Amino acid sequence: MDKTILENGETVADGSICGYDSLHQLLSANLKPELYQEVSRLLRGSNCGKSLEQIVLPDSAKALSSKHDFDLQAVSFSANKEQMRKPRAVRVGLIQNSIALPTTAPFSDQKSGIFEKLKPIIDAAGVAGVNILCLQEAWTMPFAFCTREKRWCEFAEPVDGESTKFLQELAKKYNMVIVSPVLERDLDHGDVLWNTAVIIGNNGNIIGKHRKNHIPRVGDFNESTYYMEGDTGHPVFETVFGKIAVNICYGRHHPLNWLAFGLNGAEIVFNPSATVGELSEPMWPIEARNAAIANSYFVGSINRVGTEVFPNAFTSGDGKPEHKDFGHFYGSSHFSAPDASCTPSLSRYRDGLLVSEMDLNLCRQYKDKWGFRMTARYEVYADLLASYVKPDFKPQVVSDPMLHKNSS
Amino acid sequence: MDKTILENGETVADGSICGYDSLHQLLSANLKPELYQEVSRLLRGSNCGKSLEQIVLPDSAKALSSKHDFDLQAVSFSANKEQMRKPRAVRVGLIQNSIALPTTAPFSDQKSGIFEKLKPIIDAAGVAGVNILCLQEAWTMPFAFCTREKRWCEFAEPVDGESTKFLQELAKKYNMVIVSPVLERDLDHGDVLWNTAVIIGNNGNIIGKHRKNHIPRVGDFNESTYYMEGDTGHPVFETVFGKIAVNICYGRHHPLNWLAFGLNGAEIVFNPSATVGELSEPMWPIEARNAAIANSYFVGSINRVGTEVFPNAFTSGDGKPEHKDFGHFYGSSHFSAPDASCTPSLSRYRDGLLVSEMDLNLCRQYKDKWGFRMTARYEVYADLLASYVKPDFKPQVVSDPMLHKNSS
Repeated sequence: MDKTILENGETVADGSICGYDSLHQLLSANLKPELYQEVSRLLRGSNCGKSLEQIVLPDSAKALSSKHDFDLQAVSFSANKEQMRKPRAVRVGLIQNSIALPTTAPFSDQKSGIFEKLKPIIDAAGVAGVNILCLQEAWTMPFAFCTREKRWCEFAEPVDGESTKFLQELAKKYNMVIVSPVLERDLDHGDVLWNTAVIIGNNGNIIGKHRKNHIPRVGDFNESTYYMEGDTGHPVFETVFGKIAVNICYGRHHPLNWLAFGLNGAEIVFNPSATVGELSEPMWPIEARNAAIANSYFVGSINRVGTEVFPNAFTSGDGKPEHKDFGHFYGSSHFSAPDASCTPSLSRYRDGLLVSEMDLNLCRQYKDKWGFRMTARYEVYADLLASYVKPDFKPQVVSDPMLHKNSS
Repeated sequence: MDKTILENGETVADGSICGYDSLHQLLSANLKPELYQEVSRLLRGSNCGKSLEQIVLPDSAKALSSKHDFDLQAVSFSANKEQMRKPRAVRVGLIQNSIALPTTAPFSDQKSGIFEKLKPIIDAAGVAGVNILCLQEAWTMPFAFCTREKRWCEFAEPVDGESTKFLQELAKKYNMVIVSPVLERDLDHGDVLWNTAVIIGNNGNIIGKHRKNHIPRVGDFNESTYYMEGDTGHPVFETVFGKIAVNICYGRHHPLNWLAFGLNGAEIVFNPSATVGELSEPMWPIEARNAAIANSYFVGSINRVGTEVFPNAFTSGDGKPEHKDFGHFYGSSHFSAPDASCTPSLSRYRDGLLVSEMDLNLCRQYKDKWGFRMTARYEVYADLLASYVKPDFKPQVVSDPMLHKNSS
């Protein structure tokens, strides 16, 4: 694994080269416009046959972006006009960020540092007219689960805790639904921890919560040391702006998890994540887009940015030497749409806010067009799964008779 | 939709520009090597941290490629060495081709023309040491289902029909399993039609068949006029070279279909397809790769090439004028691997044979690494689907109480 030096002097450990900000930016800077357009058609699709349109944001949002040095991008998906329904355009925002202070700082300072860092980005979302905003996974803390140290559990808080209160004010102020993924402490069930997304309504009320369904056990993702598989099913939250759900991080590798949110009626599914280049970067644009296509909903994918260095070294097995960081969180937050198109991604290195306007009517339009639900034959798969989960399940295998003849 | 003229003078109707053969070729010809390498890392993944290696094929294979003007590419995926199992390297081939004669020619001439055209490509696979070969969907005929005309049904044949006999000889000659997707006529059930893949063993025997599970009803895909949803489940065929399955065409949009072949133990799933640029090209590299990642198996994706023009005009709705062709079949056949890597694609325009060597041990290595099966919680989804298929299913929706207060 090569170590390369970025322009800002940061060392990244994911084998990536320096000098570019995102795939989109690399290609647009290095290909002739007509070739870039063709590559974009192949890679990102077109939205109903058109290109995505840039949204002009108010100067106040741009000023916040300049002053606080975060990436700010805004694009619009389109949908066909219908005769029987009005358009249901909503603005949706995704925030990605690095942590504010070293992991050696007092915990309360680390946490309030992140609050201070996020405040102007959330303000920018507010003045940009964002209706639904999602933050990154476990946004109040470093992603410390790699260490297996239990002291980081102190960052956990109940669903109505400090971070929720902080966001409730902003939700109310900006008439904005906010999805807040945090490490939850369940006071009513013996102080156990969950990886949870709190859904805060546009009036500042708590609508509900969802707990991460699938927990990784790979590389430095030692999360199963801290919390268990969620017990909240696959809830879809009906907000004034549309029906939303949250597929937290590793759940994006599970097509059944995506499916379940679709069956329950989600129009936008957020995927707040924390993932590193060496392990997942080539999968990152694949899984979210596949889910958007297969389930006819929008997906908002978020990954944190930067490298978080911890005080004590830890190992991840596979004979790798002990190390103090998780690797580079490569950002690259983006939206995918039911028509197979997607937005360019935010930076691989910088904090950012991605705003996208989308007409939620597109979901049903693509259900009608492709007919994936109608042709899905769910009864076949209900039977198969019911059979599969039994210990004596026998796979449907047709063996070449010659094979057994030859081997006997 | 712009019409552009290709270098060979063919008119394509999918809005693509002329002058390149594949995305891979466009990017490698127009980016500096180090940028191309980085783009490849982001787009195609690396295989166990390494680049895919070119396979050197015998001159006799290359000679067939030159003489008969088809694209010939060969690359190798790698896998880790294990202590308890030997490597299980197999060579797998995919063939994509245009039809041989105009659709106005006598049917028997059209069919024998395709046989003659395919023979040297299959020979090339044989001399290249291919162990398992898959042909494209309904390879014996033009993809005439767009027309809704029933006379094309004449191309159908029973599982042990003419095309199977043709391939059985070649399977035996080259010790090669051949997957042959054809329009099947079921003589034992009242002459009905199916979209079927026949699995021919390396001794020339028929191992079994699989019938397409999901039938499209979109655009010019009028296939539901000709045949119904398959009744053969999700069989996995145990051959001497490995366990294979076939997800025919539109089934690639259904994650449950991919899942079912995985649950039954497939190590390679073929996706013989016939699809056109305007409708599906941005989805083409997404769905197959997602399936390979999610189910820890290899996927071989095949699409036919060229534009097939029919005698009588037909419509596809949406107010589009009547037309005589389906659009451009964009080829781009390729392999995807369980580690999220994939091969470059064959040409968008030319007939081709793609050979890939793969160690099937990689499948279980990635099941062990990522743990997707272990963490899948199938029992949760068995329950959900059992509930979903009931007419009185109620989705799990949590409504914002303020919403109903406001609206009352």
